[in-house]
Amino acid sequence: DPNLKVFSLNSNFPLADEIAKVIGVELGKCSVTRFSDGEIQINIEESIRGCDVYVIQSTSAPVNENIMELLIMIDALKRASAKTINIVMPYYGYARQDRKARAREPITAKLVANLLETAGATRVITFDLHAPQIQGFFDIPIDHLMGVPILSEHFRNRDLNGDIVIVSPDHGGVTRARKMAERLKAPIAIIDKRRPRPNVAEVMNIVGHIEGKVAILIDDIIDTAGTITLAANALIENGAADVYACCTHPVLSGPAIERIQNSKIKELVVTNTIELKDEKKIPKITTLSVAPLIGEAIIRVHEEQSVSTLFD
Amino acid sequence: DPNLKVFSLNSNFPLADEIAKVIGVELGKCSVTRFSDGEIQINIEESIRGCDVYVIQSTSAPVNENIMELLIMIDALKRASAKTINIVMPYYGYARQDRKARAREPITAKLVANLLETAGATRVITFDLHAPQIQGFFDIPIDHLMGVPILSEHFRNRDLNGDIVIVSPDHGGVTRARKMAERLKAPIAIIDKRRPRPNVAEVMNIVGHIEGKVAILIDDIIDTAGTITLAANALIENGAADVYACCTHPVLSGPAIERIQNSKIKELVVTNTIELKDEKKIPKITTLSVAPLIGEAIIRVHEEQSVSTLFD
Ligand SMILES: Nc1ncnc2c1ncn2[C@@H]1O[C@H](COP(=O)(O)O)[C@@H](O)[C@H]1O
Ligand SMILES: Nc1ncnc2c1ncn2[C@@H]1O[C@H](COP(=O)(O)O)[C@@H](O)[C@H]1O
Repeated sequence: DPNLKVFSLNSNFPLADEIAKVIGVELGKCSVTRFSDGEIQINIEESIRGCDVYVIQSTSAPVNENIMELLIMIDALKRASAKTINIVMPYYGYARQDRKARAREPITAKLVANLLETAGATRVITFDLHAPQIQGFFDIPIDHLMGVPILSEHFRNRDLNGDIVIVSPDHGGVTRARKMAERLKAPIAIIDKRRPRPNVAEVMNIVGHIEGKVAILIDDIIDTAGTITLAANALIENGAADVYACCTHPVLSGPAIERIQNSKIKELVVTNTIELKDEKKIPKITTLSVAPLIGEAIIRVHEEQSVSTLFD
Repeated sequence: DPNLKVFSLNSNFPLADEIAKVIGVELGKCSVTRFSDGEIQINIEESIRGCDVYVIQSTSAPVNENIMELLIMIDALKRASAKTINIVMPYYGYARQDRKARAREPITAKLVANLLETAGATRVITFDLHAPQIQGFFDIPIDHLMGVPILSEHFRNRDLNGDIVIVSPDHGGVTRARKMAERLKAPIAIIDKRRPRPNVAEVMNIVGHIEGKVAILIDDIIDTAGTITLAANALIENGAADVYACCTHPVLSGPAIERIQNSKIKELVVTNTIELKDEKKIPKITTLSVAPLIGEAIIRVHEEQSVSTLFD
């Protein structure tokens, strides 16, 4: 369909290339560069008048650069008379700033939603939001894809040495662990971090049976990897036979790679919603592609079919 | 007045400090830092409920970081029940992207206006917009201060050796040169760049009398300094006795400092709407402060007096 155009900005070209192949289109021609003073310069190099445009951009680091690229691209597309402007944001930056936890905090996840709509986005396709409530921050349609099926499939096909248990590293992730457990027909456990008194180290209490089992930790985001590596080590200390970990979004900032290297985690399985730079590609990390799923979602959206059935 | 609060973000602390002194207030307490993954974290550390808040932030380089800091700060102030949120943007980034010069270009200056309003800004105070039409991009009040009076005052008090002529480096800046010429009771000249045929070097043609005179070049922005240094050298070649240059916004990116050093410009006079980093502080450059003017503008806005009379 000549009216379906897919453009990639600078955050994740390899993923965009894969998605274009899945759909069977060429990526749209555009250049997204910088003027001498650092301002973003965008040139869309083909007509998109009347087209359904899909823009692929994760708002991972450098998050502020990537958000501004996206907003300026949307503005250019709108002024060039695109029919619809569909934002494919495999990783939604600022998702953790989704509520006022303290007085006088911003709710940046909501701000980002407002900015996208103001710029002219007409639809958002995203992946594993830190809180599903962020869907409600938008007044335009939003499709929310999930990493659990892809991650579960990997472990189903892997020869794990014994009975498995799916472990959530905190209370916030129990629903996600439940979903994976259902797919793998396994029980769940939860790490229950508690600070007995102020200024005393946290205690890792494990709710559920993990002794002698192969534990699979699941989270949405692994950022500095503090939570996940402490959890892994606690599981081994409490008698787990092996520990695997997985997440949808490998943010992996600061000390993350070093911590993962030095941890008891046997394999960390992630997806390519965020591109792993070369220095983060260590043997312990396995990357699965979300391109087939996103490609299929784009085709269904474009043909006005339901996306929600994609995981049934 | 305890209801008047002034906050500074990260782009120009020295200017914000000066402005606070002019007004006679302490800068509001807030920390604007980064999480490990580069996301902006803002903590406003004092109550601003019911207050008139002034936020000082130039959207100079790193422009995208500075814009996002500003938007997130506005969001936090709005949610913390500020009465008014007044944005003091001495330098308005992306001002040169103010029209569609080619097909399928964004109009980023308008996008930025929309983003500020969406975040919750209620008023903007800015300085020497690249095009005064940008005022019309806002649906909220905007006060537009000007650099010409400050720059003119400097040259009036300086002992220049002979008759002066104010020179605009291109057609776009003639109105600005006219204003300076009126203040200094001097004639004007214009550099008329022309490309005789495609792929042939531009010719610098000078409209007006400059022989034997002290030429003062004036522009709003000096970015890579290509235009201004070529103009200065053309003036000397055509018989000007001396060449001075001035501008409001010293962007000075890329080769700018080297070009200025190597040019025939005797002194470059700029203002502090953009903070000059140490490596750009060369003896040829004189910096004038806009703090007294901005401080006075804030006081007048706060007391609901007219700002437009500030330059009469
Ligand atoms: N980029 C970030 N890096 C680390 N922490 C963050 C980030 N953004 C927000 N937070 C904090 O993470 C907490 C939310 O995480 P959670 O409790 O897992 O939903 C809040 O206290 C936020 O202040
Ligand atoms: N940050 C920037 N650096 C250099 N050129 C720019 C920048 N932003 C916009 N422009 C270009 O500058 C031109 C506008 O400048 P002017 O003709 O002086 O108004 C347009 O052609 C823009 O594409």
